Amino acid sequence: MARTSPRSAEKRAEILRRAASVFRLKGFHGAGMREIAQGVGMAPGALYYYFASKDDLLHACQLLTLERLLASADEIVRESIDRGGSAEGRIRRLMRAHLRHSLDELGGSLAHVEFHALPPERLAEVVAQRDRYESAWRRIVENGIEKGEFRTANAKLATLTLLGALNWAAIWWRPDGEQSPDELATAMADTLLGGLKR
Amino acid sequence: MARTSPRSAEKRAEILRRAASVFRLKGFHGAGMREIAQGVGMAPGALYYYFASKDDLLHACQLLTLERLLASADEIVRESIDRGGSAEGRIRRLMRAHLRHSLDELGGSLAHVEFHALPPERLAEVVAQRDRYESAWRRIVENGIEKGEFRTANAKLATLTLLGALNWAAIWWRPDGEQSPDELATAMADTLLGGLKR
Repeated sequence: MARTSPRSAEKRAEILRRAASVFRLKGFHGAGMREIAQGVGMAPGALYYYFASKDDLLHACQLLTLERLLASADEIVRESIDRGGSAEGRIRRLMRAHLRHSLDELGGSLAHVEFHALPPERLAEVVAQRDRYESAWRRIVENGIEKGEFRTANAKLATLTLLGALNWAAIWWRPDGEQSPDELATAMADTLLGGLKR
Repeated sequence: MARTSPRSAEKRAEILRRAASVFRLKGFHGAGMREIAQGVGMAPGALYYYFASKDDLLHACQLLTLERLLASADEIVRESIDRGGSAEGRIRRLMRAHLRHSLDELGGSLAHVEFHALPPERLAEVVAQRDRYESAWRRIVENGIEKGEFRTANAKLATLTLLGALNWAAIWWRPDGEQSPDELATAMADTLLGGLKR
């Protein structure tokens, strides 16, 4: 099975990184399969062996980033809620993981693309994963409220406020800018958790 | 000049509202001129009399929302920085104005569309207006830092954190949901200014 050999998996990953970078630069509709193929030194026909369409590529990029985000979030929920520790510490870990995955070479495309670029059944799958991810965050926020650590009454809105601030970073952050994803996570956590007011 | 008569201006505004609503539902690339024309009871040919292309429509929607955002921000900067009052109060007013304009029937499309959907020279114009708007926010954040009211050292990052949380609301907020734009502004300001931590 050529598709699942180690060399093939490596090629697949290389194609996804390239596709993400082209989506980020040109948008989904501006990106071409030919350009993505050239970027990894393949003939367009060979690229279609790995991914049947541009939809396929976008879908694979989004799902892979979401998979990583979910794996990090599940680990943070599992490791720490039962063992004590502060909700603040957990939110800080979530923020670091979120920015690492969403600002890396693969994740950058996630926030950029039109949701509507995917056909309905694929969009539904991405939305379901996003919902699962948001639920993991919300559980941690709710835990902070229950313990009296957080002062909001609306865990859902607080979660969307935190995630919105982080997701927007995928739009303005640049790899050659002032801050690394980890530095950004710390600075944003200080404002979001401690408040802008003195 | 038919284009500038009151009736014509009214029709133009009606078309823009309709276009924004179709962009919001289907995305820019999924929206059709025919569908927009039908929505306002016009033949497609008549729609082209007002807007030469879908690009034109998107561009007009984005600029009109940005114009409103800028007018509100300029007023808040002008009215209040010289006259004293708290930076917190100004940020709260900015947040209310931002959510009112960006969640209304016209603004909803702004955050949804691919930036890349616009041709370069038009994109540059929208980006320049966005930059002007962001600068107005930053001036108010800087003023709060100078007065010792805000505790961040990085006005730019704080501004992007606030705007990111607000802009994300254009993606998840629904007119039939729990909160009005004003209620949302108050709740988000409480978290962003006061912090999630007790």
